[in-house]
Amino acid sequence: MERLEQQLRFILELDKQKKIGRQTYLADGSRKEGDAEHAWHMAVMAFLLADYSNAEIDVLKTMKMILLHDVIEIDAGDTYAYDDEANKTKKAREQKAADRIYGMLPKDQEEEYRALWEEFEAMETPEAKFANTLDKIQPLLLNHASGGISWREHGVRKEQVVGRNARTHEGSEALWEYAKKLIEENVKNGNIAE
Amino acid sequence: MERLEQQLRFILELDKQKKIGRQTYLADGSRKEGDAEHAWHMAVMAFLLADYSNAEIDVLKTMKMILLHDVIEIDAGDTYAYDDEANKTKKAREQKAADRIYGMLPKDQEEEYRALWEEFEAMETPEAKFANTLDKIQPLLLNHASGGISWREHGVRKEQVVGRNARTHEGSEALWEYAKKLIEENVKNGNIAE
Repeated sequence: MERLEQQLRFILELDKQKKIGRQTYLADGSRKEGDAEHAWHMAVMAFLLADYSNAEIDVLKTMKMILLHDVIEIDAGDTYAYDDEANKTKKAREQKAADRIYGMLPKDQEEEYRALWEEFEAMETPEAKFANTLDKIQPLLLNHASGGISWREHGVRKEQVVGRNARTHEGSEALWEYAKKLIEENVKNGNIAE
Repeated sequence: MERLEQQLRFILELDKQKKIGRQTYLADGSRKEGDAEHAWHMAVMAFLLADYSNAEIDVLKTMKMILLHDVIEIDAGDTYAYDDEANKTKKAREQKAADRIYGMLPKDQEEEYRALWEEFEAMETPEAKFANTLDKIQPLLLNHASGGISWREHGVRKEQVVGRNARTHEGSEALWEYAKKLIEENVKNGNIAE
């Protein structure tokens, strides 16, 4: 029973992730999305779009990785992609959060899921590369659909978007091809600054 | 490219699920959760708690089933568990929604994921039973954590909770044992009416 109780405490702790806000607006522009919504959306993309991964992936592993990839934001908060100051302290804040949050799980699960998050961050395996590609493509799709509200609010420039997406092609050349067109279209219509 | 575009239109359509509200409050009682958050939470539970399933399950299949199980609510809305009137028309509304929404996918994926939803609804396979168990346990955990706000708001009675959970044990006797204790505790403290 102690094992189950530990697991359920972790599961309840995760509830807090629903309240972590992101900078991306929903497709209809009505409000920004939360971390849990983003992870759900990405996880669906993982199995619907798995065929577009450059390398063969273990879809189950990719989905677990995705569903928990932002758990550390419960303590560390969401660091906006284009906030250079916050990004300097991101790594240290997130490691501390991982210690506490994954530490709530039974030892074997703590090790498995902590390792999966480290793997996501390291971006070296096919699963981590594909998950990172989705982590970039999902907000791109939403930003495009919402008329670029988030880009315009933050005055985001093309070089920032392209820079941030420097490795997006590593997970899926096909999705990156599609994304490039979206970016160009949004530069043209002024949603992304030149 | 047509295939990818179809898939991305479906993925964008799913964004609407984030706006479908549920009656369950977050653990801290601050607001109600949405469908996408609920599905995310359940999907994490599926792999963290898979060992408690009565029968062996294909975890990947269970997670896909869970992540898309409420997609039909984009058109059909969330039908509150204890709203008897709305539950009479639920099935017809949901089938029509499934036709439209799954119909946006390429044929092979439409068939696969529509079938997975029908399987979830039929509650006959180990995966469907376990997913349905999580669909009941997840709000129970949140209702308990929030001090039973949702139960009290709707004046929910013990016989309703027990009735609604008549088949929860089919997915996991262990989780149902735990849930029974939570229900008893909330009857005792008055969150659930006798």
